[in-house]
Amino acid sequence: MSIKAVVWGENVHDQTNRVVADIYPGGMHTCIADGLNEDARISATTATLQQSEHGLTEQRLKDTDVLLWWGHAAHGDVDDAIVERVVEHVWSGMGLILLHSSHFAKPFKRLMGTPCGLTWREAGERERLWVTSPNHPIAEDLPDHFELENEEMYGEPFSVPEPMDTVFISWFQGGEVFRSGLTYKRGAGSVFYFRPGHETYPTYHDTNIKKVLNNAVRWAYNPQQRRTNVTDAPNTPVENALETIEECGPKLHQDGEEGYK
Amino acid sequence: MSIKAVVWGENVHDQTNRVVADIYPGGMHTCIADGLNEDARISATTATLQQSEHGLTEQRLKDTDVLLWWGHAAHGDVDDAIVERVVEHVWSGMGLILLHSSHFAKPFKRLMGTPCGLTWREAGERERLWVTSPNHPIAEDLPDHFELENEEMYGEPFSVPEPMDTVFISWFQGGEVFRSGLTYKRGAGSVFYFRPGHETYPTYHDTNIKKVLNNAVRWAYNPQQRRTNVTDAPNTPVENALETIEECGPKLHQDGEEGYK
Amino acid sequence: MSIKAVVWGENVHDQTNRVVADIYPGGMHTCIADGLNEDARISATTATLQQSEHGLTEQRLKDTDVLLWWGHAAHGDVDDAIVERVVEHVWSGMGLILLHSSHFAKPFKRLMGTPCGLTWREAGERERLWVTSPNHPIAEDLPDHFELENEEMYGEPFSVPEPMDTVFISWFQGGEVFRSGLTYKRGAGSVFYFRPGHETYPTYHDTNIKKVLNNAVRWAYNPQQRRTNVTDAPNTPVENALETIEECGPKLHQDGEEGYK
Amino acid sequence: MSIKAVVWGENVHDQTNRVVADIYPGGMHTCIADGLNEDARISATTATLQQSEHGLTEQRLKDTDVLLWWGHAAHGDVDDAIVERVVEHVWSGMGLILLHSSHFAKPFKRLMGTPCGLTWREAGERERLWVTSPNHPIAEDLPDHFELENEEMYGEPFSVPEPMDTVFISWFQGGEVFRSGLTYKRGAGSVFYFRPGHETYPTYHDTNIKKVLNNAVRWAYNPQQRRTNVTDAPNTPVENALETIEECGPKLHQDGEEGYK
Repeated sequence: MSIKAVVWGENVHDQTNRVVADIYPGGMHTCIADGLNEDARISATTATLQQSEHGLTEQRLKDTDVLLWWGHAAHGDVDDAIVERVVEHVWSGMGLILLHSSHFAKPFKRLMGTPCGLTWREAGERERLWVTSPNHPIAEDLPDHFELENEEMYGEPFSVPEPMDTVFISWFQGGEVFRSGLTYKRGAGSVFYFRPGHETYPTYHDTNIKKVLNNAVRWAYNPQQRRTNVTDAPNTPVENALETIEECGPKLHQDGEEGYK
Repeated sequence: MSIKAVVWGENVHDQTNRVVADIYPGGMHTCIADGLNEDARISATTATLQQSEHGLTEQRLKDTDVLLWWGHAAHGDVDDAIVERVVEHVWSGMGLILLHSSHFAKPFKRLMGTPCGLTWREAGERERLWVTSPNHPIAEDLPDHFELENEEMYGEPFSVPEPMDTVFISWFQGGEVFRSGLTYKRGAGSVFYFRPGHETYPTYHDTNIKKVLNNAVRWAYNPQQRRTNVTDAPNTPVENALETIEECGPKLHQDGEEGYK
Repeated sequence: MSIKAVVWGENVHDQTNRVVADIYPGGMHTCIADGLNEDARISATTATLQQSEHGLTEQRLKDTDVLLWWGHAAHGDVDDAIVERVVEHVWSGMGLILLHSSHFAKPFKRLMGTPCGLTWREAGERERLWVTSPNHPIAEDLPDHFELENEEMYGEPFSVPEPMDTVFISWFQGGEVFRSGLTYKRGAGSVFYFRPGHETYPTYHDTNIKKVLNNAVRWAYNPQQRRTNVTDAPNTPVENALETIEECGPKLHQDGEEGYK
Repeated sequence: MSIKAVVWGENVHDQTNRVVADIYPGGMHTCIADGLNEDARISATTATLQQSEHGLTEQRLKDTDVLLWWGHAAHGDVDDAIVERVVEHVWSGMGLILLHSSHFAKPFKRLMGTPCGLTWREAGERERLWVTSPNHPIAEDLPDHFELENEEMYGEPFSVPEPMDTVFISWFQGGEVFRSGLTYKRGAGSVFYFRPGHETYPTYHDTNIKKVLNNAVRWAYNPQQRRTNVTDAPNTPVENALETIEECGPKLHQDGEEGYK
């Protein structure tokens, strides 16, 4: 049974910018999903900002193993309730992969707890990604480095928490460096940020990039049953304590009362 | 020059519950601040929920090296704008110490990006804290373990990100364990969560607890000048690139244009 | 194709101590391997200290996906050259699982770079393991906690580096706590330390323990081709630089010369 | 009272290579110590490979707050017993700073548990260090990046464990990147690896480099009393258990017996 991936696309420049539309005729999300579907182990579909509930209903997310997210111009248009829904599914075990300008996407900022800022320059310069964690599942079958002849530059400092793994670091022609592949765990969910993918370049047609996304989907997939009630703080009554104890001292809460949130 | 600490107290049960008021006549925040002020290296004042802007104006936070936070019954009453202000000051370099039921305080959940849930029981049972990182600055001058005869139980799983350091783990009489002292870095700010401190017990009068809070304030203090513009993503124009590059490829942004957020 | 696991047993008390021999008639390593072989996805064999090269020849290790290690009384008898061989295979991608008193086994101390000390008591007391990272692959299909009615106590501080994940924390009847399940990455190899397993108790016959070991083997398995030359520091000559540069400044090394080690 | 730093120099090329001797007339270690002594908060002395016990007697190390280490051509000549002594002092609380080619120094490899390999090229190319953790104590008073016009290149993958903090990442003119400033905790000791410092270039005369080393010494300093017996595994007899327990089940150890190592 294949891994169910959903590629979420903002789908704004794909529709309004001639350059982007020429490179990605069906939209970036479609190109990314097509790349994933080349592997029989993955079954990828798409969702976009413009759809009802941005295409991310509760039922859809329940049925999603790994969500990929590309956003840029319309971060502010994403409904906060949908963001919260996505985040809770990550906590429950859904994988999440953030692409390029999604460093500023609401779900990523929400999960990191940091500004997620960086420096940038759109000059079509050369980017070279170095694998800093060889044999990491996300780097499977990749050379020790690979290049993108034209990319937008993102520079350090990248204001994110220290990652679980640093998988890639980028060298830029103009003199900057950037931690381009970072992994995190948030609750039961695996999170991967991957830098490349400016919409005016054919990055998602690149073989190495497609390989990274394929690897990342398989890495982020958690085959276990989704957790429930992840935001609860359950009370364990005295009479159910695993070791016999007697209640003592003054109490604030009445028995069985729910805690404050 | 001493470290400027501000102890923020929710100050609800301190006013409404006889048990709490008897243990902490001036409020819990006052007791905590008094403990810190026993050390000439720290200068502690207080702020409460009920004050204008919860006592945490922009000017006050600018002038605060380390903020300690105790909340429980009224997490929901804390203004989101003030939370965002606190969080930005952490990113800029202010230390933040979260106490006990503040695991569910808005600034902590905001900085962690996780639910921060746990299990709990209010039975006045024995808690024993073990130092898991000996010689950590926060464990300075502490024995290898110490006890609180009556405390509320918090049990794992504690849904927070993997910490930078696990400084304390608690053993509970009823059979649970809990990671009671956890450190994080968020931007330039050091964050410490410390478990004990249920309001119906005299925890903040305990010598070891006072020692931990003193140590934690000194650990969380960053003497460097506060960072500014921490949420920015500055553009580096081609003509200012550190290495000479020529612009090529199609562009989305016009020169000097601000990026999307 | 199944995962090839090798269970290495010191096999000393299994032969010399009546209590141990009664619980583990074929030796502890055999019991552990039998447990793993109940799952068709794993194919486990054994190796022991007494065999030539401790049963861990270069060829055997090349053919091993995950090595499990149980040692106690004879850590000092393990040949340093074999230890180095094991460690290099871990760096190359072999998984390694350290059991109980193997906290002091040479390969573990070698990979951690710390003393790996702890406190201990052999009193047959109750141990309760709490899952601190729900939905971690190593905790798959486990309850939120489980008990071993008789176990040796290990207590904090456990002098190891901060782990990648804390998967289990133990509560002991006598009042101690211990981080009982810790993950690490060393080179391309995944490393897991798992606390329970004192030889005078039937721990490896326990269903939950068998489940943990099965999960851990599958987690530690890296399907990628083993890395080679992991201890090299290759020179990249100027003429092969990815960007055109001209050599300048004084030199210490002649072209093509090997670096110092 | 000032922080007592000891700068350990291999002192081989300083004596045998004209280029190195011209840049560092008193040896590299002397230049580094002089730089630290410009700050009254630090009191630095030197030690070299050629001295009795490499200048690192037990008494000397006991009296050292932070040890800096520069080695390259003679890693193999460092006595293993001295390495073990240094490592135990780190576990006890001494700070350790590894410089440049000391990525292959015995104490660093011993503390990391990994090969610590990398790629390299000696071409006098430009290195630009980016601060990836702004406001980290080690980056105090530094610009967001700084350059060394001529340095040896070190390239990823750098086979070390994931660090506590990544403080600097280097960009190299020839196309590589490298994590140039990494922090670790090993026992009670803080460890910092800092990349620049090839002996044929005047790196240790550079103002920013001197600033980093000064910051690093102050960061690595642990004012607490040094820990003792860090390699012990003390037994806690049943009669001293913190909670009353009764011994049960079969035993391997006699009362008061020392554990196996």
